[in-house]
Amino acid sequence: MPWLASFHRGLFSAIGLLAMVTNVMGKDSADLLVVGATVVTMGADRQVIDDGGIAVRDGKIIAVGNSAELKDKFDATRTLQGDGAVLMPGLVNAHGHAAMTLFRGLADDKALMDWLRNYIFPAEAKFVDEAFVRAGTRLGVLEMLLGGTTTYVDMYYFEDAVADETAKAGMRGVIGQAMIDFPAPDYKTWDATLAGTEAFLKKWKGHRLITAAPAPHAPYTVSSEHLQAAKELAAKYSAPLIIHLAETQDEVENSKKQFQATPTVHLDRLGFLGPNVIAKHVVWATDEEMLILKKHGVGIAHCPQSNMKLASGIAPVPQMLKLGLGVGLGTDGAASNNDLDMWGEIGTVAMLHKVNLRDPTVIAAREAVAMATIDGARAVHLEDKIGSLEIGKEADFILVDVTAPHVVPMYDVYSHLAYAVKASDVRTVAVAGKLVVDDRKPTTLDPVKIVAEAREYRDRIRTLLAK
Amino acid sequence: MPWLASFHRGLFSAIGLLAMVTNVMGKDSADLLVVGATVVTMGADRQVIDDGGIAVRDGKIIAVGNSAELKDKFDATRTLQGDGAVLMPGLVNAHGHAAMTLFRGLADDKALMDWLRNYIFPAEAKFVDEAFVRAGTRLGVLEMLLGGTTTYVDMYYFEDAVADETAKAGMRGVIGQAMIDFPAPDYKTWDATLAGTEAFLKKWKGHRLITAAPAPHAPYTVSSEHLQAAKELAAKYSAPLIIHLAETQDEVENSKKQFQATPTVHLDRLGFLGPNVIAKHVVWATDEEMLILKKHGVGIAHCPQSNMKLASGIAPVPQMLKLGLGVGLGTDGAASNNDLDMWGEIGTVAMLHKVNLRDPTVIAAREAVAMATIDGARAVHLEDKIGSLEIGKEADFILVDVTAPHVVPMYDVYSHLAYAVKASDVRTVAVAGKLVVDDRKPTTLDPVKIVAEAREYRDRIRTLLAK
Repeated sequence: MPWLASFHRGLFSAIGLLAMVTNVMGKDSADLLVVGATVVTMGADRQVIDDGGIAVRDGKIIAVGNSAELKDKFDATRTLQGDGAVLMPGLVNAHGHAAMTLFRGLADDKALMDWLRNYIFPAEAKFVDEAFVRAGTRLGVLEMLLGGTTTYVDMYYFEDAVADETAKAGMRGVIGQAMIDFPAPDYKTWDATLAGTEAFLKKWKGHRLITAAPAPHAPYTVSSEHLQAAKELAAKYSAPLIIHLAETQDEVENSKKQFQATPTVHLDRLGFLGPNVIAKHVVWATDEEMLILKKHGVGIAHCPQSNMKLASGIAPVPQMLKLGLGVGLGTDGAASNNDLDMWGEIGTVAMLHKVNLRDPTVIAAREAVAMATIDGARAVHLEDKIGSLEIGKEADFILVDVTAPHVVPMYDVYSHLAYAVKASDVRTVAVAGKLVVDDRKPTTLDPVKIVAEAREYRDRIRTLLAK
Repeated sequence: MPWLASFHRGLFSAIGLLAMVTNVMGKDSADLLVVGATVVTMGADRQVIDDGGIAVRDGKIIAVGNSAELKDKFDATRTLQGDGAVLMPGLVNAHGHAAMTLFRGLADDKALMDWLRNYIFPAEAKFVDEAFVRAGTRLGVLEMLLGGTTTYVDMYYFEDAVADETAKAGMRGVIGQAMIDFPAPDYKTWDATLAGTEAFLKKWKGHRLITAAPAPHAPYTVSSEHLQAAKELAAKYSAPLIIHLAETQDEVENSKKQFQATPTVHLDRLGFLGPNVIAKHVVWATDEEMLILKKHGVGIAHCPQSNMKLASGIAPVPQMLKLGLGVGLGTDGAASNNDLDMWGEIGTVAMLHKVNLRDPTVIAAREAVAMATIDGARAVHLEDKIGSLEIGKEADFILVDVTAPHVVPMYDVYSHLAYAVKASDVRTVAVAGKLVVDDRKPTTLDPVKIVAEAREYRDRIRTLLAK
């Protein structure tokens, strides 16, 4: 029908004219333009733009496109040249304990119970107070930002202080207050835990960067009744609900004995599972259990390096992805990894499952990158806000330099992001449009002071453990 | 016996006096002193010196000790301050194909035969000539040096050019000329291969940095007769003998059909195995086969990331170590890894076998570091020359900065070297006493030119593959 085509051409011409008129009348304003980069959007169509960028206003992405168009359309307060770099969404670290960065490498290569009882628990009992948590969080946040992580999920004690340090650093966080059935460094009773967690949720409700969450530690350390109370609290404040789940085979066996159910089935029976739950590890899950998690919209934080180092097992991630579960990547704490480097997790997840299934085609490069960005956002239930470079989303982005010898030549950008790029290639990091790392320099944190603090704690902790 | 103690004291005083006299009479000369570092010697006693260093003369280590003693004893042409750094032996990359760095990420996540037949072989047939090999070697050597690798084992074509580029860059290499039973980019017939390889061995014999070696590709690509010829050639020139061995389960099954023996038993029957052999991968080996390899003093190049990414399998490394085999670490080529980063292999080897055996105590941090240094040297049969900081050895050393946020605090130096340090932490690299990377700047190679060359090849190769 030629008349219809003609009508369409007419319409497009009118739009083109309108665009020209807008240009003549003056450009749109933007706070920040990034141009000249290879843009990996991680949007639904996985669009890659060879010479492109984004425009940012009020901390949000208002345009994604090629460089010439963006420069034509916007007058920006600041323009970042992305030459030689990949522009992509900031990474999402779906599971960690930032304050434990002060315990980095405190003890390795131990059986889990030896490690916990003879190293971590004594050190925690003696040292973990609010000041420790603040110092550890600053160190962890600094490491994560420098390596391109813009959002992280935390679970530890004194999380109001964690939220405060995270917000001050300009990082985004899903900050989980640990809830556990024995006296903790912050709260000595369940009632105090519950009251403290509620005050924490109330205080941070509506904050742009901080999503406060109750974080009952695990099904084996929190009673059924208390798990339900935590769930109710999350519901009351429309908060996420964070829990360790099915990390070790022992946990599954013990759960079967205690509850006549695996941890996943136990949580399902309690009505704990729902579309706000973030389940950490989930190493041991049957197909049936994965379907339960899928049905409830539970997000999964897969921690390949932690699971390897602690010999927990290899999670059935390719199967989870096949079933459509939202699976993100997490570093776990630096006491059991021993870094907070998401690039290591991306490479590991892409390689580990190939050898485990003896199939070199599973978890391809692009899929691994997705798990650290858009799928990670989905796993932590923030996919409406972050995880891709799309109009309307928060301007959480990174520029990754791809000019060093170890990342040339480049045939495929996803291949490099999955298998060759290092944390040290990250040159610029922005959260909600604010540059928190500018040409490799942190703008909100003082590395010299943070490193010195960490060493002071190390000296004191080492003295204690030598006794 | 007090008189004996008294005699000893007298003797020590006399030695002390002698030392003082020597000082008065003038210090010993050294070309280079490194002081103020945490020294990880990797010597037999695994000594660690908190504030120490080494003295170097004529490219060899002439003293290892604490900083004050060294400064007292030596007048040096140059002194390097190792403050905030770990001083340790340069890393040994026991298996790679440096020139293939130009194929980095050319194709990933493919089944092996698809990858080889549709990507690597066509690209090799079209592009691999001496100029390509030189450009690729420069890029690979640059990446390795910047990341702290001082010795690598290579296997590819045009290895005289590889040796030349490696020597010019001031790197140490065991340079293996590929020998294969079909027309290769350099030699079209077996006779030409044999003659060319002999000329290559003769030319480089006695070179301080280059150890030339015949490298028959694998038992499935080289006939029994030709394997024996390669062995004789190695014997004639007292050269190492490099071969891929038992990398995939298919290789083992095919070998059983063709030779009624596994690849290892096949080589044993041929009399191929000996204390100069470096066997790459050895993913599939029974206890009995490991004992055969042990009996002959064969060195093993374990490539954990390549074996994971290509889904080859998980080599029985903890068992090899228990049996006393010399096992080093290799990156394999950048076409199948996709980097030449030994720190990634160290971390991976420490984690992979833990989860595989479900035992968090196997391959502890120090053992993983040993596999990249002294055990690596043993695997490539250079343990008398390199792999540890000991008097009389070649001064192949690196300074690794441990002040960045991702490596603080430090409780245990081996833990950090295994689990937290990145290639980007390497600040100084010396081979035979010569600084080839000085405060992160390469002194022998031009990164701008090398990166530009790599991109030119990429553009041409991409055009070919698009056809």
